[in-house]
Amino acid sequence: MRLVRLGEPGRERPAVIDDQGVTRDLTPLTHDIDGAFLAADGIARTRRALTEGGLPVLDAEGLRVGPPVAKPGVVVCVGQNYAAHAAESGSEPPTRPVIFFKPPNTVVGAYDEVRIPRGSVKTDWEVELAVVIGKRAQYLDSPEQALGHVAGYTVSNDVSERDFQLEHSGGQWSKGKSAATFNPLGPHLVPADEVPDVQNLRLRSFVNGEPRQDSGTADMIFSVAQLVYDLSQYLVLDPGDVVNTGTPEGVALSGRFPYLKDGDVMEIDIEGLGRQRQTLAAD
Amino acid sequence: MRLVRLGEPGRERPAVIDDQGVTRDLTPLTHDIDGAFLAADGIARTRRALTEGGLPVLDAEGLRVGPPVAKPGVVVCVGQNYAAHAAESGSEPPTRPVIFFKPPNTVVGAYDEVRIPRGSVKTDWEVELAVVIGKRAQYLDSPEQALGHVAGYTVSNDVSERDFQLEHSGGQWSKGKSAATFNPLGPHLVPADEVPDVQNLRLRSFVNGEPRQDSGTADMIFSVAQLVYDLSQYLVLDPGDVVNTGTPEGVALSGRFPYLKDGDVMEIDIEGLGRQRQTLAAD
Repeated sequence: MRLVRLGEPGRERPAVIDDQGVTRDLTPLTHDIDGAFLAADGIARTRRALTEGGLPVLDAEGLRVGPPVAKPGVVVCVGQNYAAHAAESGSEPPTRPVIFFKPPNTVVGAYDEVRIPRGSVKTDWEVELAVVIGKRAQYLDSPEQALGHVAGYTVSNDVSERDFQLEHSGGQWSKGKSAATFNPLGPHLVPADEVPDVQNLRLRSFVNGEPRQDSGTADMIFSVAQLVYDLSQYLVLDPGDVVNTGTPEGVALSGRFPYLKDGDVMEIDIEGLGRQRQTLAAD
Repeated sequence: MRLVRLGEPGRERPAVIDDQGVTRDLTPLTHDIDGAFLAADGIARTRRALTEGGLPVLDAEGLRVGPPVAKPGVVVCVGQNYAAHAAESGSEPPTRPVIFFKPPNTVVGAYDEVRIPRGSVKTDWEVELAVVIGKRAQYLDSPEQALGHVAGYTVSNDVSERDFQLEHSGGQWSKGKSAATFNPLGPHLVPADEVPDVQNLRLRSFVNGEPRQDSGTADMIFSVAQLVYDLSQYLVLDPGDVVNTGTPEGVALSGRFPYLKDGDVMEIDIEGLGRQRQTLAAD
């Protein structure tokens, strides 16, 4: 099954796509897919309701696909978690996870327009595996314990403005990660127990149909389990929080590809998690 | 008048302290002091209700003082916005505002306990003027326009763990700014139009009664108006968001003072905005 939120921004309704591909209304179970729902065993309850046949079919035709989780408390991003991307960015691979934050109001749906900020000449794509937290995580004892705090996974585009990130920022990357629409998330939240091996998923990105990134989560420096464990030593991860786990090589910052411009189309996908598509527009 | 939130964490009720020092219940007007309330002209409505005598007296005796604004979407922090603090941190003064984020779940009340994170040996204080946004700010035209987007001001302690910030972080400061209880905020939200000159306020901090920081907002490199204007070019500031505007010299990172330990007492104050007091405890 896949959890989705359908409808106009701020008025999405929760839904689930069952294993036959039928979209079903989740409002009998919850008013939204958010931290409170995930913390209250929402994924298991959804599965049970599907089994019991308690969820009515929803006509999803023409409905916008929103981000699959509402109002994350934080969007934590992990920097340079793939060695080849660290190299193309001019950095050594990190010895501990490097983190920064994006404002949660950057989060949009998987097919929403992405706006190039005013003054930008270096807007760039970043396909990432996103982790959605299901259970409060603080001072976890081990990476093994960490995966029990993950509700599921989805696709994230950590859109970045490289001049803002590197030249306007005094070295603190968030300044180039925070513009409106800079975090397409989705289309689906895939329950963690339906992803057979999260460290063996292919990630790709395309611009105007041409390949850009093509790598796999096997190449992460720090695994999902290590990241959630490490983060829990420095902050409290709450249900509904999102962790963008880093991007592989093949972004425009490398110098191998042009930056994005008005009218370009980004597509990104992760094996088993779905595909996003955004058109760029000047803001 | 001063806006306050009183009660146990997560169950605070909104209140206002009138110009006679009487605490009055704000629940006839709003269920909370949050972005929606501020955006809907909440400060002017509170003032009107006080004038009309429509707010009942509230017995505040024994009630905890919570943070004066509920659920900020982001807590933006400005780094090295005082030249002498940049110097004690080993940096040149920045030529543009440097920003990073703290998770909103770090925000606690002005008198709540601050916990020293596990593994910490360098927990440090930072008194800062906090700006609370009252009106959505994106692509503002000028610094002059920016002050119209500020609801009010309060006191903020941007508690920091220097090893986490500088040694565990790969240079991205947020890792040392994010632990639970690391952002005491309050005690009051003071309406912007009741602060005669926000660039002329004395800020101080004390540890166990001994003076540490003692400076003034006149020494900011970027004024409040410049900061809000600059931030609005890079992100969307929403009502209820908090901007910590940077700390002056006199923190432990300078090498002049010991770091905080279990049982220490921090006090910080800003002229006209009030005083905080926290006891440190091992986590």
